[in-house]
Amino acid sequence: MVAADNLQKMPETASFNLAAYLQERKKLCEAALDESLPVIYPEKIYESMRYSLLAGGKRLRPILCLATCEMMGGTIEMAMPTACAVEMIHTMSLIHDDLPAMDNDDYRRGRLTNHKVYGEDIAILSGDGLLAYAFELVALRTPESVARERVLQVIVHLGRASGAAGLVGGQVVDLESEGKSDIPLETLNFIHNHKTAALLEACVVCGGILAGASPEDVQRLSRYAQNIGLAFQIIDDILDITATQEQLGKTAGKDLVAQKVTYPSLWGIEKSRAKAQELIESACAELEPFGESAQPLKALAQFITSRNH
Amino acid sequence: MVAADNLQKMPETASFNLAAYLQERKKLCEAALDESLPVIYPEKIYESMRYSLLAGGKRLRPILCLATCEMMGGTIEMAMPTACAVEMIHTMSLIHDDLPAMDNDDYRRGRLTNHKVYGEDIAILSGDGLLAYAFELVALRTPESVARERVLQVIVHLGRASGAAGLVGGQVVDLESEGKSDIPLETLNFIHNHKTAALLEACVVCGGILAGASPEDVQRLSRYAQNIGLAFQIIDDILDITATQEQLGKTAGKDLVAQKVTYPSLWGIEKSRAKAQELIESACAELEPFGESAQPLKALAQFITSRNH
Repeated sequence: MVAADNLQKMPETASFNLAAYLQERKKLCEAALDESLPVIYPEKIYESMRYSLLAGGKRLRPILCLATCEMMGGTIEMAMPTACAVEMIHTMSLIHDDLPAMDNDDYRRGRLTNHKVYGEDIAILSGDGLLAYAFELVALRTPESVARERVLQVIVHLGRASGAAGLVGGQVVDLESEGKSDIPLETLNFIHNHKTAALLEACVVCGGILAGASPEDVQRLSRYAQNIGLAFQIIDDILDITATQEQLGKTAGKDLVAQKVTYPSLWGIEKSRAKAQELIESACAELEPFGESAQPLKALAQFITSRNH
Repeated sequence: MVAADNLQKMPETASFNLAAYLQERKKLCEAALDESLPVIYPEKIYESMRYSLLAGGKRLRPILCLATCEMMGGTIEMAMPTACAVEMIHTMSLIHDDLPAMDNDDYRRGRLTNHKVYGEDIAILSGDGLLAYAFELVALRTPESVARERVLQVIVHLGRASGAAGLVGGQVVDLESEGKSDIPLETLNFIHNHKTAALLEACVVCGGILAGASPEDVQRLSRYAQNIGLAFQIIDDILDITATQEQLGKTAGKDLVAQKVTYPSLWGIEKSRAKAQELIESACAELEPFGESAQPLKALAQFITSRNH
């Protein structure tokens, strides 16, 4: 597998340097996230929200959103509020999923989880604050150059991806499946389509909508995202088995200990890896009509299967 | 005090029957809420969301939203998605505030709290689901007759009222103040402006915005709402002392037991009641320019001080 800290070794076409691209976009996203959430009274809640929101991470979701908007002819400025919003929604779900009443995790991205630092009460409220702020930000800050109807469509997609039809629904079925070793593939797919793919899809689809993509192109983008979403989860499951705690920044081997049904537990590691690669190829095939400008999204898809944390 | 179940005794002008008005509007809101959230897979989360959302209550917030929209020349249809959204946001805050990590309440509206029935994990997720769905609903269902820019403004107000600048911020300071008997009036005002008044204000202001109210009228509506918001909280504090558990549908006397600083603890019951009445009069004065059509909002303001649960 490709070393995490050596992005120069990443798959790369003649004219596209993914490592440099990711680094530059990550910097842009982090500056926008930092700027979006100043610390005011009552400081503790803003500090707690910032603790998790600015805890690093690959920023894959906002980068996907920006990249799709640009591919479809839009600008970074058009998509940045939505890019920040998807990272806020993602962070909310991590904070809440880590709570003692849920997955009870002490570490996340190599640091103590939000509730270990700020307490459960503040952690719950931080998630709520990030979720509410995500919608406010999109409605307030998306530039006037984007038709207002498009902004509303983005809000619909973000709402659906965050709630019972998305992240929340996936987590519910995940919690119900805990400790059961006879989860059918259908249920496993439901969990990951909702916990992982739904928000990735919203990132990509919203980026397209903001740029004015046609309904047909939005369908293509949606299929691209669903494929990379599932591949992403398969790789996550593999990494839980093969990577070290240090590489993951969170407890490794949790799925095995919890006797959780995962793709590798159903298919084995090699077949899972092949399936992920197949999904990535299907994803990239969806982008053929967009020609050269699809390079970043194709490279991002490849990056997902080659990452090691 | 006026008997709860005898709304015919409510203050009432010659031409306006508040009891009938409230009953009719409540029915409309409950039908819309019921219809907005069907039970699908995974059923448990939708049942949990519905358990709290359809648990009765006065539906004051959605009724305020509809009434303001109508007063400003709009229709019920224009405001109904937003009216449902404010009730979802309110319900989310009740579910999360009741959690063991927060106020640890076993009863709400005379029934077991959400986490006592569905568990803490599902209760947290139900709140998240309701919050996300509130925004989706407004963006998706507000009729085309409302300019899209107005819908975005509504989403900004709802986001602000729900998050760290509203409900969440108020709850943080409330939690920080717990067990302290030397809370200054300024802090008490902050808590209630954020925990109670912010969402009431959003209900009224959003109703106005949907109907196309001018910025000046929105300012008036905002002052009306802030006044009734504070009055509402003062009356809540008084009822915690004077009402029975049966009347409240939740544990009575909690503030005294928790040695919580409240308006009656600072001012005494009689002065608190007078202050609430003053606030209601200021609120109604803001509505003078709207003439006869302000009757429902004026009656609603009076209702707040005369309620006994």
